[in-house]
Amino acid sequence: MTRNPTLLCCVYPEQKVIALSSISNPIRLGVAGLGRAFALSAPAIHAHPGVNLVAGAEPNSEHRRSFETTFGAKTYADVRDLVTDPDVEAVYVSTPHGLHKEHALAAINAGKSVLIEKPMTVSLEDASSLIEAAKKAGVQIIVGPSHSFDGPVKLAEALIAEGKIGRVRMIHALYATDFLYRPRTAAELSTDLGGGVVFSQAVHQIDLVRRLAAVPAQRVTARTGGAWDADRPTEGAYSMLIDFSEGVYASLTYSGYAHFDGDRLMENTAELGIPKSDEFKSARKILESVQDESEFKSSRGFSSLETCPQAQTHEHFGQVFVFGDRGDLRLTPNGVEITDTNGPEFYPAPFRTARAEVFDTLYAAVREQTTPLQDGKWGRASLEICHALLTSSETGDTVTLNYQEG
Amino acid sequence: MTRNPTLLCCVYPEQKVIALSSISNPIRLGVAGLGRAFALSAPAIHAHPGVNLVAGAEPNSEHRRSFETTFGAKTYADVRDLVTDPDVEAVYVSTPHGLHKEHALAAINAGKSVLIEKPMTVSLEDASSLIEAAKKAGVQIIVGPSHSFDGPVKLAEALIAEGKIGRVRMIHALYATDFLYRPRTAAELSTDLGGGVVFSQAVHQIDLVRRLAAVPAQRVTARTGGAWDADRPTEGAYSMLIDFSEGVYASLTYSGYAHFDGDRLMENTAELGIPKSDEFKSARKILESVQDESEFKSSRGFSSLETCPQAQTHEHFGQVFVFGDRGDLRLTPNGVEITDTNGPEFYPAPFRTARAEVFDTLYAAVREQTTPLQDGKWGRASLEICHALLTSSETGDTVTLNYQEG
Ligand SMILES: NC(=O)c1ccc[n+]([C@@H]2O[C@H](COP(=O)([O-])OP(=O)(O)OC[C@H]3O[C@@H](n4cnc5c(N)ncnc54)[C@H](O)[C@@H]3O)[C@@H](O)[C@H]2O)c1
Ligand SMILES: NC(=O)c1ccc[n+]([C@@H]2O[C@H](COP(=O)([O-])OP(=O)(O)OC[C@H]3O[C@@H](n4cnc5c(N)ncnc54)[C@H](O)[C@@H]3O)[C@@H](O)[C@H]2O)c1
Repeated sequence: MTRNPTLLCCVYPEQKVIALSSISNPIRLGVAGLGRAFALSAPAIHAHPGVNLVAGAEPNSEHRRSFETTFGAKTYADVRDLVTDPDVEAVYVSTPHGLHKEHALAAINAGKSVLIEKPMTVSLEDASSLIEAAKKAGVQIIVGPSHSFDGPVKLAEALIAEGKIGRVRMIHALYATDFLYRPRTAAELSTDLGGGVVFSQAVHQIDLVRRLAAVPAQRVTARTGGAWDADRPTEGAYSMLIDFSEGVYASLTYSGYAHFDGDRLMENTAELGIPKSDEFKSARKILESVQDESEFKSSRGFSSLETCPQAQTHEHFGQVFVFGDRGDLRLTPNGVEITDTNGPEFYPAPFRTARAEVFDTLYAAVREQTTPLQDGKWGRASLEICHALLTSSETGDTVTLNYQEG
Repeated sequence: MTRNPTLLCCVYPEQKVIALSSISNPIRLGVAGLGRAFALSAPAIHAHPGVNLVAGAEPNSEHRRSFETTFGAKTYADVRDLVTDPDVEAVYVSTPHGLHKEHALAAINAGKSVLIEKPMTVSLEDASSLIEAAKKAGVQIIVGPSHSFDGPVKLAEALIAEGKIGRVRMIHALYATDFLYRPRTAAELSTDLGGGVVFSQAVHQIDLVRRLAAVPAQRVTARTGGAWDADRPTEGAYSMLIDFSEGVYASLTYSGYAHFDGDRLMENTAELGIPKSDEFKSARKILESVQDESEFKSSRGFSSLETCPQAQTHEHFGQVFVFGDRGDLRLTPNGVEITDTNGPEFYPAPFRTARAEVFDTLYAAVREQTTPLQDGKWGRASLEICHALLTSSETGDTVTLNYQEG
């Protein structure tokens, strides 16, 4: 695993800083899928000097119209027209999981680098075929946005590399959300189609834990909770142990069952970097009051920049601790806290917009041919751990991993 | 596993309440070992109307003198004299792990019920021989104090039994302390002699998680951290997955490496139920300034009631969540918080003194022949999980348990 830290902007001293203001040639980005994921990334894309939105593809005409109006950019109903548009240099694939392969492959075969939403694909075979295709086409794959891009995670990686906590020994991550009770399509509630918290949420937690471990994962032992609610018969919770090389191990626990709010462990800040009030909002109750769940889901797609969530801090993915020989590290929505024999010390992570780091990485990959940390092989490795999570839970056995190195 | 809830005092409505004030015949308790553990329990024993301290045994003459002065009770240098004293009805074995078997067996063979500090013994064989002996002698074994006795754990058990969170599905526990850098004897730093965090700390976490799971454990997969500090070459951290029956699973993580202070996750309340200041105290630094570690350790033994830690809330063992079908439960130093679709609701756990529940249980066992939850078999089952933790970490395999059912 070679690490190429993004050589871009406002990062920790160890990393080279390139002024964003010097960018004269932003990437001309096309977007496939103008739904919820795009709405979450739109503010970061809009704010980033290295990226210009030039086109979008989406069957939903309302989303298309909103996109045109907001960005003065063209739209297509079909992704094939987007990827062959010569104005489009790179493609952000933010369609549902099941379409990632088809859409990313179309873009790659058209010679475009791709930013693919997590999980990279549903099957490992599909992930491998994208890696192959990108290699042949000489283009880059970046898998994200994903929480390993979060500013505090990146800062933590740098502080660890500097030796601030000595050798990393043990990692611990815990999060509880209402994931399973946000409005969902049928596919999102079917494990076979990539539904459930494993493919959509574990993939985040795995991703950031891998970045912090900084050595390859080797084995996975896990248990999932899947039958807690017969009406939503996919995984809603899990605990897993990951063995990394060099004796490093990690425990990851997650519940998406919409009871305890894990954001309370994160200074009452939502995953998207938005301060929360103390008032409890039950995703289950909201959902019960909804007539058509998939229509409700669709209404959360892109409509305007103003209605996109506006992060005030970095995004986060719940409680994360890294235990080292000489200190322990904890992520917060604003940075990193390290406790050693001298007590806790806080390191703020510079904040521009949420997800700025994703588009820094995209820019560096496309304009400077920097291989991103979260490349195709990285994305496949996180996906492999998702599958191992399910397999281990099903069989009760520990699963050995095969796609983690290089 | 049959559950006999302690039928004593100020408990949740479901359980029968007997007024403490009606107790006219307190148990005449003898104590073997007047060190740190006794100092931690002394205030609770002193305050409990169901227990009278009548004798202590301890080689250290200073501790003996302090005990005599404080309690107007006799002392012996040798445990054999204590257990055969006809004034002594029951014996609290608070000597080091390695002596639990010898001292408990002596008491049992003298026809006395025993309260044995955790872990019950170091080896499973020793635990079995105590269970056998107690059965033959017709006396009771209680293993504790241990954090499964904590008021909030007991209250949580009752709330779960009432159905407040539906079926228990997943449990999560995390704690970080300075355990490994408190003053230690050589044995306490040697795993073979029962040293390290597994036998002294995991045993607490396992104990309380078992009580909350309320079904037998079946398998253990675990990893330990043992070589982080060459000067203290025993386990200082671990993560484990426990499979319980009925598909319940638990993840437990612990570090005793004295960096991040897990009490910050518990309203800044120390394990012993004492509010903490924000000032960081490094156990590593304190230890470095000490000349003779075992002398320092000895100085923390019993000297007076005034110098014993005085709990202001219940004791706790860090962050604990129970995820159920219909709600999630979280322990706090003051009680239990349950979050369901209506949001969080707090249930205070009635507080008299820390550890009062232990001596309620002792009283009920000795005076009313109530089989305690934390009996010999219970203690052996928790101990078996400690051994499984070590074995699984050593071999990398999942370990099947044999001593968990009744
Ligand atoms: N990184 C994050 O924080 C995050 C958050 C949400 C979703 N996601 C990921 O983004 C992806 C999309 O999820 P979502 O929640 O936005 O779903 P969504 O349903 O809200 O959005 C998907 C969009 O793709 C459109 N679409 C469907 N078929 C299409 C096609 N053939 N061509 C073009 N567009 C098509 C849909 O109409 C919809 O607008 C998923 O892979 C999900 O895991 C990531
Ligand atoms: N439940 C808890 O919170 C808790 C806390 C600390 C210790 N403990 C347990 O208590 C036990 C003792 O640990 P500790 O920290 O108090 O150790 P300690 O060394 O402070 O106390 C043990 C005492 O036993 C005495 N002793 C030694 N040999 C003896 C003998 N042959 N006869 C009589 N007394 C003898 C020692 O002189 C000492 O005073 C251990 O099993 C430990 O796990 C439990």
